[in-house]
Amino acid sequence: MPATKDPSAVQILVITARANLDDWAHAFSTACPHATVYSIKDTGKYSPEEITVAIASHPPVGELAKLTNLKLIVSLARGVDPLLRDTTWDRSIPLVRLMDHSLTESMVASVLAHVLAAHRFHNDYRRLQAASTWRKIPHVFANTRTVGVLGMGDLGLAAANALAALKFDVAGWARSDHRLRPGARKEIKHFHGAEGLREILKRSNILVVLLPLTGETRGLLDKETLSLLPSGATFINLARGAVLVEEDLLELLNSGHISHAALDVFCVEPLPKDSPFWQHPRVTVIPHMGADGDPAVQAAQLEGHLKRLAAGEPLENLVDPRAGY
Amino acid sequence: MPATKDPSAVQILVITARANLDDWAHAFSTACPHATVYSIKDTGKYSPEEITVAIASHPPVGELAKLTNLKLIVSLARGVDPLLRDTTWDRSIPLVRLMDHSLTESMVASVLAHVLAAHRFHNDYRRLQAASTWRKIPHVFANTRTVGVLGMGDLGLAAANALAALKFDVAGWARSDHRLRPGARKEIKHFHGAEGLREILKRSNILVVLLPLTGETRGLLDKETLSLLPSGATFINLARGAVLVEEDLLELLNSGHISHAALDVFCVEPLPKDSPFWQHPRVTVIPHMGADGDPAVQAAQLEGHLKRLAAGEPLENLVDPRAGY
Repeated sequence: MPATKDPSAVQILVITARANLDDWAHAFSTACPHATVYSIKDTGKYSPEEITVAIASHPPVGELAKLTNLKLIVSLARGVDPLLRDTTWDRSIPLVRLMDHSLTESMVASVLAHVLAAHRFHNDYRRLQAASTWRKIPHVFANTRTVGVLGMGDLGLAAANALAALKFDVAGWARSDHRLRPGARKEIKHFHGAEGLREILKRSNILVVLLPLTGETRGLLDKETLSLLPSGATFINLARGAVLVEEDLLELLNSGHISHAALDVFCVEPLPKDSPFWQHPRVTVIPHMGADGDPAVQAAQLEGHLKRLAAGEPLENLVDPRAGY
Repeated sequence: MPATKDPSAVQILVITARANLDDWAHAFSTACPHATVYSIKDTGKYSPEEITVAIASHPPVGELAKLTNLKLIVSLARGVDPLLRDTTWDRSIPLVRLMDHSLTESMVASVLAHVLAAHRFHNDYRRLQAASTWRKIPHVFANTRTVGVLGMGDLGLAAANALAALKFDVAGWARSDHRLRPGARKEIKHFHGAEGLREILKRSNILVVLLPLTGETRGLLDKETLSLLPSGATFINLARGAVLVEEDLLELLNSGHISHAALDVFCVEPLPKDSPFWQHPRVTVIPHMGADGDPAVQAAQLEGHLKRLAAGEPLENLVDPRAGY
């Protein structure tokens, strides 16, 4: 993969199982020709102790710890839980996330696709179509449809803004008040903390989950919390499967309290063949394709991280390993 | 329905089969209390010769001609083809359309719902889900996905702008160049005329139809024109069934040239039970629910039309019966 092996260049190792690894390596070589980029497929071609930057998503446990001279870890994914699950790497190494707009836009498109399908009753019309039945369901205007967004990080904020632009009544929830980001459209209602979670759940006709998976959010959405949703609500999970207690969601789907669930993520992926979600008439299963970044855009952002590292400048988009995001 | 019968007031007759007629009449009475509003359900309560304003969608042929003192016809729907199909009313009576933003927003939501479902392969994932199969389909970034919008009136323009805001490569087509409206985002590519139609069809991965039904557009989308679409294109019709030759679409769906069709409108509505569209695995059937206006917003706009009529001012949103829109 590397064109030349220049000992003075930054040596980068890409540790990912992404399908588009080659696109990505090509884009990065173009954006930053002075670095030498290896992938974990290049075993034997690089020396672990010469690698100073690792670009990772879902690294096998222990891989990062082998890189004894590591100065920076860059997460390709927004959710860093797979990186933090590996407790063997030195937590004094800075971990940053790529926060490129292409991945954000990709997630916003997923959010809108699922929310609009629910809003315009396309899941209900599919059942009517299966019965060859022409029946109009009265319109609900967007301004009387409350969409709750759990998680107001970069992705949640962009999704909330896009929904507000379409005139939905949008509410956003974050763990703590200080996490509310600048740039939110003024129509968005804000909630935080445990009491705020109860409030937003009670009002959300459509709930969009974009939470990071942390010690605090694991299993947060269970029978007790999901029961707070209005009857007939739609549940959309584009974050991580484990923020949800899957059996509790199934119970609420079967009782009719939740009318439809669009699930992009699962506790076990790939979703096992015997999962009841596959054939459930009120579940949409998408194989973890909520968002993807454009390699060219991501490579340009990576270059910025490398320049700041080389110049000793403060790093951007740093992850706090204790908070988990 | 009328609270009082004041002979000095404008007397309005509402001729529509809309489900929300009562909401609408209530909203109008609130917005414009000096008018007296009747509906065709009020037979015997009003004198046809005292009605000066008719608000209509899909009127039975001959109903408008009975109103011998009519000064204004207001179309509740954007598509005036059902009004023009009745050739018995005096074409010197001005016909205006309600162009309220609530109906436009409602149509934009429908367009986005169908386009995003196609863009994010949700129709394909539904087939994979039916087979309990976890298979990722590589992302296509919005900027490499061309969405063509046929019809660049109020609805087409709003849809094209919303799609461009989501970074799609958007192209718009109108019959003639002078119809291109101000307010279009600069990224939108414009086409017009017969040659322009061929060009936009050849490039559109996803085609959205928002054309008026006129003598020129009837049957415009047939085997010849639809075959110009790239192989695997998605076809979305939110306009009128008769702009399409339905059998030709079916043939192209069955050959695989068109991968999916989302149809909100049909040549015969309700869609007959024996239509092959109902059970076609690559067709989404929606029972003509593309857009609806908020009665409160529409009533406020109607008030403006009445004021201009009373003041002898030029009317807005006038329809040219010869052009058909």
